[in-house]
Amino acid sequence: MNKRKIIIAIADGIGDRPISQLEGKTPLEYAETPNLDFLASEGINGIMDLISPGIPVGTDMGHMILFGYSKAAYPGRGPIEALGVGAEIQPGDIILRSNFATLVYEGEEKIIKDRRAGRIRERTQELALALQGIELNNGIRGFLIPATEHRAVLILRGENLSASITDSDPKENGGKLKKVYSIDNSMESMNTAAALNEYLEKCHEILENHPINIERKEMGLLPANYIITRGSGKMNEIEKISQKLMLKGACIAGEGTVLGIAKIAGFIPMSNELFTGNIDSDINLKAQMTLEASKENDIVYVHFKAPDLFGHDNKPLEKVKAIEKFDKLIGKILKDIDSDTYLAVAADHSTPCEVEEHSGDPVPIAIYGPSLRKDWINKFDEISCAHGGMGRLKGNEFIDYLHSLINKVKKEGA
Amino acid sequence: MNKRKIIIAIADGIGDRPISQLEGKTPLEYAETPNLDFLASEGINGIMDLISPGIPVGTDMGHMILFGYSKAAYPGRGPIEALGVGAEIQPGDIILRSNFATLVYEGEEKIIKDRRAGRIRERTQELALALQGIELNNGIRGFLIPATEHRAVLILRGENLSASITDSDPKENGGKLKKVYSIDNSMESMNTAAALNEYLEKCHEILENHPINIERKEMGLLPANYIITRGSGKMNEIEKISQKLMLKGACIAGEGTVLGIAKIAGFIPMSNELFTGNIDSDINLKAQMTLEASKENDIVYVHFKAPDLFGHDNKPLEKVKAIEKFDKLIGKILKDIDSDTYLAVAADHSTPCEVEEHSGDPVPIAIYGPSLRKDWINKFDEISCAHGGMGRLKGNEFIDYLHSLINKVKKEGA
Repeated sequence: MNKRKIIIAIADGIGDRPISQLEGKTPLEYAETPNLDFLASEGINGIMDLISPGIPVGTDMGHMILFGYSKAAYPGRGPIEALGVGAEIQPGDIILRSNFATLVYEGEEKIIKDRRAGRIRERTQELALALQGIELNNGIRGFLIPATEHRAVLILRGENLSASITDSDPKENGGKLKKVYSIDNSMESMNTAAALNEYLEKCHEILENHPINIERKEMGLLPANYIITRGSGKMNEIEKISQKLMLKGACIAGEGTVLGIAKIAGFIPMSNELFTGNIDSDINLKAQMTLEASKENDIVYVHFKAPDLFGHDNKPLEKVKAIEKFDKLIGKILKDIDSDTYLAVAADHSTPCEVEEHSGDPVPIAIYGPSLRKDWINKFDEISCAHGGMGRLKGNEFIDYLHSLINKVKKEGA
Repeated sequence: MNKRKIIIAIADGIGDRPISQLEGKTPLEYAETPNLDFLASEGINGIMDLISPGIPVGTDMGHMILFGYSKAAYPGRGPIEALGVGAEIQPGDIILRSNFATLVYEGEEKIIKDRRAGRIRERTQELALALQGIELNNGIRGFLIPATEHRAVLILRGENLSASITDSDPKENGGKLKKVYSIDNSMESMNTAAALNEYLEKCHEILENHPINIERKEMGLLPANYIITRGSGKMNEIEKISQKLMLKGACIAGEGTVLGIAKIAGFIPMSNELFTGNIDSDINLKAQMTLEASKENDIVYVHFKAPDLFGHDNKPLEKVKAIEKFDKLIGKILKDIDSDTYLAVAADHSTPCEVEEHSGDPVPIAIYGPSLRKDWINKFDEISCAHGGMGRLKGNEFIDYLHSLINKVKKEGA
């Protein structure tokens, strides 16, 4: 038996429900998908619940599981967002979701006039640059990494830190700025709250007098003169899947979050600006990079975002088109795939158009490749796959099974 | 309703994958199996993952689960091997895998010249007999039970013992003999290490001057003058399934490991030298003993080893023949089975020819008997059963279901 490899193509949010506009079919049933149907008919099929039936998952959690983690390994929203914006985070870091905001004084009171600083969109990179690595008491340092629009990720790095602290975000415009307090009165959390309050005040001094804000005020715009924080989380040491299983991996994607999680797992993140996250994403380049990466790796993930987008927007016909584009990506990979390589198709969750959100519906799965127990299914869709030979698997079970196909699962007992 | 009973026929390693030499069928699909197909067509079918999809299991772990244990009850390799060679082990015993080896002196250094004492095959029974029950400090006693060729199982019995000790096995020929040390510096492990070092030295004195070794040296063979040890494990108290469920059981098999685990479970081990583990195993006698045992027991296991053998050897056509022989065993049992007795067919794991090892693929299962919900399947094979009415079960779930059919599972709630 030659050495086996795996390519996993992930169609973000592909699962859906029957839609009257599509003759009562799901977008996947309605779409013309000759390549996916070939895969279903020559391979083995099933349905998958990422965590458990009825539990909707986020793209981040879905990918944690698809990359080989258990649900318990999920590090929280802050670290995931930090990874999504490309931040270099380290074990022990405290990570907070934060906004550029507008602070005004009413007498002695500090009021957050606008939690989004007039929905500031530009030059937050420059503002953030002025706040990098400010030294605080006890050798703690603060970093601010701007994300889209008014959003940013705040990192506190140092000894004896704890995530058990309150939010400074007043949660509504016109609300009073809140000081950050320890929740559990531990030394670490009091230390952290003090450092964060100090950092936010120092940021305020710098931002208040920053040329960009002076300019904004002159133009009648709200200044981005304060950072409000929420959702504190600690980045724990997470074992790399690549190390745990001695598994060389890569991930081809356009999404920061997906690439960031791939990095946690120890898989090489590979991207290109032509991977747009929309229907115009360059699938030729994606297929080419996937097949190239497969030469050097045991497992290669390739991610396609567009079906999810149109699920969220309740646009069934666009979702059909996105799925047909994904089918073409599958066709291009199938054309040149090595005969010792499995091609699996999966999704991180369902995003039914009528829900406009991720749902608890399972997703269809299929595996095509050498010596598989071909089942009786010949169409890749939510309903056909529900009758497939893999049955109904949990996300972890599906990934264990894939790992076992390339001999990366240890035998229990002797 | 009359009192119901169960016979479970276990086809070791029967599950496989499509093989081009067999027209792209699995050995089970390819084989002529009228009796298994009758069972499938008149019964209810499914597939089973002993622990979980994608997790390969050993024959020992597979049978622990088939006999009714959870994965967590697995006592480790040492105790299983000890059971396999028929050792009487007791809760609290420390069990080590060991070899007869050849020790030489190079100056002061003790060197293990050969870890297998020239692959000694004969008269290890006699050597071991000279080492039985040697009294050590603190009332600890040592026992050596010879297994095949140079292999043996070493048992330390006494108070305050711990398995947290290092190996004396240097792992390579010509390596220095290692003293045994405590790993965790606990009183118990230091006590155990001291006793084991003492036992091994006493064994050495006895073996060095044993007539068999003097003879070996005269014949130019390496003497079996030392015992090296590895893989220390403690035998914990394991509750008998027979007691836990008030279930009278028996196990008809030729394999020491299977019989040993049956004994742990409290099922009567029944064997015969005509049960060879190969294709020539006496199935007439097996069927007869099974039906006899079924009169006296609630549950009877009958084990057939040959399919596993030919999976390991990558011999698809021989595996087909082994499966056809298993089918005949089923036919003989079916012929005289009581109408109130269920006949279930299962396996401990898949052993695909191309893998030459146990794999993470599920195994087909079927149950035939009174008042079952007959499904739409009429062939017993990996693919047909995957579409069966029992769906995809975990090993523990399948066994719970069987136990429930004979009213051995307590209601939860009232």
